[in-house]
Amino acid sequence: MSKVPFTKTQIAELIKKYPTPFYIYEEAGIRQATNDLARSFSWNKGFKQYFAVKATPNPSILEILKEEGSGADCSSLPELLLSKKVGITGENIMFTSNDTPAEEFVKARELGAIINLDDIRHIEFLEKNAGLPELLSFRYNPGTSRKGNAIIGNPAEAKFGMTREQILESYAIARKKGVKRFGLHTMVATSQLQTEYLVMNAKMLFALAHEIREKTGVEFEFINLGGGLGIPYRPEQKAIDIKAISAGVREVYEEAVQKGLMPPVKIFTECGRYITGPYGYLVSTVRHMKETYKKYVGLDACMANLMRPALYGAYHHITVLGKENMPSNNTYDVVGSLCENNDKFAIDRKLPEMEPEDIVVFHDAGAHGHAMGFNYNGKLRSAEFLLSPSGEFKMIRRAETSDDYFATLSF
Amino acid sequence: MSKVPFTKTQIAELIKKYPTPFYIYEEAGIRQATNDLARSFSWNKGFKQYFAVKATPNPSILEILKEEGSGADCSSLPELLLSKKVGITGENIMFTSNDTPAEEFVKARELGAIINLDDIRHIEFLEKNAGLPELLSFRYNPGTSRKGNAIIGNPAEAKFGMTREQILESYAIARKKGVKRFGLHTMVATSQLQTEYLVMNAKMLFALAHEIREKTGVEFEFINLGGGLGIPYRPEQKAIDIKAISAGVREVYEEAVQKGLMPPVKIFTECGRYITGPYGYLVSTVRHMKETYKKYVGLDACMANLMRPALYGAYHHITVLGKENMPSNNTYDVVGSLCENNDKFAIDRKLPEMEPEDIVVFHDAGAHGHAMGFNYNGKLRSAEFLLSPSGEFKMIRRAETSDDYFATLSF
Repeated sequence: MSKVPFTKTQIAELIKKYPTPFYIYEEAGIRQATNDLARSFSWNKGFKQYFAVKATPNPSILEILKEEGSGADCSSLPELLLSKKVGITGENIMFTSNDTPAEEFVKARELGAIINLDDIRHIEFLEKNAGLPELLSFRYNPGTSRKGNAIIGNPAEAKFGMTREQILESYAIARKKGVKRFGLHTMVATSQLQTEYLVMNAKMLFALAHEIREKTGVEFEFINLGGGLGIPYRPEQKAIDIKAISAGVREVYEEAVQKGLMPPVKIFTECGRYITGPYGYLVSTVRHMKETYKKYVGLDACMANLMRPALYGAYHHITVLGKENMPSNNTYDVVGSLCENNDKFAIDRKLPEMEPEDIVVFHDAGAHGHAMGFNYNGKLRSAEFLLSPSGEFKMIRRAETSDDYFATLSF
Repeated sequence: MSKVPFTKTQIAELIKKYPTPFYIYEEAGIRQATNDLARSFSWNKGFKQYFAVKATPNPSILEILKEEGSGADCSSLPELLLSKKVGITGENIMFTSNDTPAEEFVKARELGAIINLDDIRHIEFLEKNAGLPELLSFRYNPGTSRKGNAIIGNPAEAKFGMTREQILESYAIARKKGVKRFGLHTMVATSQLQTEYLVMNAKMLFALAHEIREKTGVEFEFINLGGGLGIPYRPEQKAIDIKAISAGVREVYEEAVQKGLMPPVKIFTECGRYITGPYGYLVSTVRHMKETYKKYVGLDACMANLMRPALYGAYHHITVLGKENMPSNNTYDVVGSLCENNDKFAIDRKLPEMEPEDIVVFHDAGAHGHAMGFNYNGKLRSAEFLLSPSGEFKMIRRAETSDDYFATLSF
């Protein structure tokens, strides 16, 4: 669980100019997380992190990440355009999509992105529609040999990636078709807090890389371990130890290289949540207190602003600004105003005594938060602010208005 | 399950000008459903149906409904504005919201809408911020005495409405404060296919109205039975019999009136799904076929266009245009291109042998379909078309573009 990096006084000032709800991202934290990851893996020559754009698709965030040496992991045309707009191009883009339309392959090729194919049939499709690049990567799905989790699904039930037989064949085909440089990728689960998770991915991929090399003669330039690093949403959870993860990956890496199973390769990651998740906060004001069969705290935010609790039953810790030291001896459902009963941020949450105008902060909303907002029930998506290391708030996305809501209609 | 009201040839023509995915709404069906409902309840003088705008918030749909005599059930500022734009104003608007901000009450008052309060504390809030209207309604939550369902929740766990004690007190307060005309409302469950459901609502509300009258002297002008009528999403399900429902309501109504429990009142409903659900179709083209551990049909639509299967596990029947008479002897997962494994329209669905360019139609997507779309992963929301009774397609909402996606950003 992240620590609120702003005070009630600061927020009260901001609210005078801009009504809640809004998101605040902590620049220093995002830079730090990117650096921690890169430094931990600095033993690997050529290590690169590609930020999963879908987690926080804001150009100001991407610019910060770019400054810290991060690439962009994209999976749609708007995400490619967003990366291009902030100057992330060429092999600083990893294009990992599925069920991909031709125009997205064309744009990815135009930008010189690394293309990571999800399916064996996409080789021919890519060749026909955009031409085959010099460098190509494929996504592996380990099937029943790995477990996955609820969100990304059991790998054998997941729509992503190729079987072992297919990926072997894919490299052989690509090589025959003149592809010269190769990468290998997997993404098995999300929100993993165990050190072993990424180490297991590495071990699995290094073994697979060896087999592919033996059978097809392909030499790998990079191996992309995927993302999926979790963050401690709950107070009792511990943050993952990125140094321990890196040390674990290094051990299996050096063993594979020393045994001659593979020559040195670049290690890539595509973390999203780990980079921005803990450094984003949804700030909301209590609008209405209600007591019927239960006690309700009604906010000016709703599931249009943060969908994870309704969609996944996800936990987001709540701080009530100025009431941090009061006892949490009241049990509330914290809800939004959407006409849908699953519009609840928290059920039976222990909180201090609440009242209208209290300012509520949702922790760890920096990834898959604003990005998943919808306009159901005419609800509008909120503004986003960046908190600079010097303590200034800069608006990096304005709030939607009714006119935005009506934009695709002609009256 | 609704019947596809267009042919493959018609869609092929439309696709030449506008790429899939898109929604098609059948004007005739929407008019028919509104008429069926009104005709069934014509025994009740003053009966009125208020369309739940959140189901299909498109002004062209609202215009059709207005022509058929329907009002609008709104619960947010954009929905109030939408109704106003098509000329639905005054007591033709029912404003049923929860955790409501002051400015929405102000706008509802300005439009002369019927205000239906969710909480006893809202009486004072409304009075202070917008003044009390002459006509006021309150929403009842029956708590443990009724069961509800998964989507709207067990009433005792639902954030909506007031307890019996609170609603009794609310009418007394409102009367004392000079409110002259009164309504009563409940909304207990959604997607109900049993005839008894609305009849039970009626019985419960008539008894409550009697009690309120006895204890507070309030005379009711209307009783709003809520919505919640289901539609048969699955082929084996039967459509509800609206005439039987109306007859059931009439029976308990006449009994209550004859026993002198209440004087004649107007009956209101606020159906959404029943009116537009069966008459909206999501049309999508097969982009990619994939076979790994399972067989996948990859569409150009994704959960951004229809969220109900991912969010609720909802079933939407699929027709493959031109393959209606082929045997459904293949088992597929029908998926979209979003980088989220729950982006699946159907799991293990029996369908004819599929191939790229097949046109797939999702039935019964006319309510809570387009309206629930989000932009996660840079996915864009689709266009909407109205199919006129004479067989013409009229675009009633354009598709989103990347520029729409970037609208709240400043580059």
